[in-house]
Amino acid sequence: MRKKIYFLALVVLLLFSCKKSDGLTSPTTENNQTETEVNGDPLPSWNEGTLKNDIIAYVEKVTKEGSPDFIPLENRIATFDNDGTLWAEKPLVQELFAFYRVKKMVEANPALAQKQPFKAVIEKDKSYFEKGGDKALIELVSATHTGMSEDEFEKSVQDFFKDAQIPGKNIPVKQIRYQPQLELLNYLRANGFKTFIVTGGTIEVVRGISEDFYGIPKEQIVGTSFKYKYDSDKNVVMREPAMDLFNDKEAKPVGIQLHIGQRPVFACGNEGGAGDIAMLQYSQGNKYTSFQLLVNHNDSIREYSYQEKDNASLNAAAKNKWHVVDMKKDWKKVFSDN
Amino acid sequence: MRKKIYFLALVVLLLFSCKKSDGLTSPTTENNQTETEVNGDPLPSWNEGTLKNDIIAYVEKVTKEGSPDFIPLENRIATFDNDGTLWAEKPLVQELFAFYRVKKMVEANPALAQKQPFKAVIEKDKSYFEKGGDKALIELVSATHTGMSEDEFEKSVQDFFKDAQIPGKNIPVKQIRYQPQLELLNYLRANGFKTFIVTGGTIEVVRGISEDFYGIPKEQIVGTSFKYKYDSDKNVVMREPAMDLFNDKEAKPVGIQLHIGQRPVFACGNEGGAGDIAMLQYSQGNKYTSFQLLVNHNDSIREYSYQEKDNASLNAAAKNKWHVVDMKKDWKKVFSDN
Repeated sequence: MRKKIYFLALVVLLLFSCKKSDGLTSPTTENNQTETEVNGDPLPSWNEGTLKNDIIAYVEKVTKEGSPDFIPLENRIATFDNDGTLWAEKPLVQELFAFYRVKKMVEANPALAQKQPFKAVIEKDKSYFEKGGDKALIELVSATHTGMSEDEFEKSVQDFFKDAQIPGKNIPVKQIRYQPQLELLNYLRANGFKTFIVTGGTIEVVRGISEDFYGIPKEQIVGTSFKYKYDSDKNVVMREPAMDLFNDKEAKPVGIQLHIGQRPVFACGNEGGAGDIAMLQYSQGNKYTSFQLLVNHNDSIREYSYQEKDNASLNAAAKNKWHVVDMKKDWKKVFSDN
Repeated sequence: MRKKIYFLALVVLLLFSCKKSDGLTSPTTENNQTETEVNGDPLPSWNEGTLKNDIIAYVEKVTKEGSPDFIPLENRIATFDNDGTLWAEKPLVQELFAFYRVKKMVEANPALAQKQPFKAVIEKDKSYFEKGGDKALIELVSATHTGMSEDEFEKSVQDFFKDAQIPGKNIPVKQIRYQPQLELLNYLRANGFKTFIVTGGTIEVVRGISEDFYGIPKEQIVGTSFKYKYDSDKNVVMREPAMDLFNDKEAKPVGIQLHIGQRPVFACGNEGGAGDIAMLQYSQGNKYTSFQLLVNHNDSIREYSYQEKDNASLNAAAKNKWHVVDMKKDWKKVFSDN
């Protein structure tokens, strides 16, 4: 229950924090590096240095047969957080989707504009949600994310992503992906790793773009899920207005067990919301040699600079010897061009 | 809640129905056909005939680019039930595992033999469970399947399968796999299908053998699951004594949505417990050309002959034009040699 309240609080927080963000530079101003392997370099958008060397040394030693660190193919599981790890999280795309859903629902049924919680969203009436508490929030999430079949929801996700842009930026959502991470995903897969997304976002929203954006199939997405119910007469799976798993923080190892069934050997998250500490710690408990990577958002020019108040993620990284991406120093370019 | 009671009733039913089965013939008496592709025949253990032709014609038309029935790679999802579909379900292997767990736990702590529910299992005291109702059953399942970490449970599953045999038969559990189905899995994979098991069995028990027995990785198992909880201090995922999803009948489409995220195009189940009707129906709702296959246990000589009282699965197959495996007629051999 605490988790549900937390999630809802998060949703409303994000729903009303959609300020124009200054950090995200248009990709046209990005250093236009080649996007694929360059002169045998699998990570051309990563600057030369200790971190890049460590990543490559790790992959080489665990994939070399006969090496004491060798990991069998079926155990080469790599998990990546999504928001702030594979793409920028300001603004949160899930938030843009919620706005989109409200807009579409009101278009289809204008009377909704006079009904809560739609009215409050359209009028940007924060007080409605502050006063209404959980009830109003459950109402909002239920109204926009559930109460329809999976087929219908999938279509709404596809429609949203077709021409979704970052507000005020004219940047397609696809271009907020981090180019160095796309290369890292490719590099791991080329070495027999199976790549998964383990996200606090809702599972079907991420599944809507995972193959196209990241080359990761739907069944390799672990995320926040609602309850489902099969309607035999209509032959559809319905989305029920109740959360099943809020896949953040200490729930990430739970989602990993449910969907993957083994600890990852390679786990990558980001600081910002302390959402990935448990996943990285869980990965480190693997019996095989493992690698933990934490993205530090310290690049106010090309992306953003934001830190947790208590520094929990970076402290955990220092204590547990996790590798930290110093975005400013380690990434030659930040965003994908296309 | 009804589902939980149903599952528990099923467990106890199976727990005490472990008679010596007469149907399962030793694999040494099996027709010793070659197990891999023979003279370009991908399904050598399937007899020539309409069904074999239909399977091959389906795979050929949906994988041929430009064909109106073409299915993109990422949508070639094939789901198979396990018990009675990929291996024999009499006795149920999950039942053998529950017995094994009780035995091991009593060996480690002999005092348990005097405690319920262990005492009742060891003394084959049906009345204890009949009288104790749900409470006693929950006690039994909790005691044998939960209350430990995933790492510990995984080890107990590995230990069980290391030398598990069918009681009274001297047949390793691995040899109750159906040879024609192993060929079908291989054939589908060779044509770009991703194969999943969607089972009423508990997910981690099936994950324990899925790669070795079927070439299916852990993350492609959809099954009955318990609640998990991450213990941050011990850095382990604990198995809680509460069911999360009983993945049978109308819950199978739910498990498929949660784990796979799209309808299968190829779905295979068996008659016997009406467990796969919903999965096959759900598959048939796919926008792509789909194929439904139902194994009919009508071979009392080489396997078993058993039918549902109301014939629900075979009736659904007839009504919906699903393909039915007439085991006696369609399978040249039944069991795997190794």
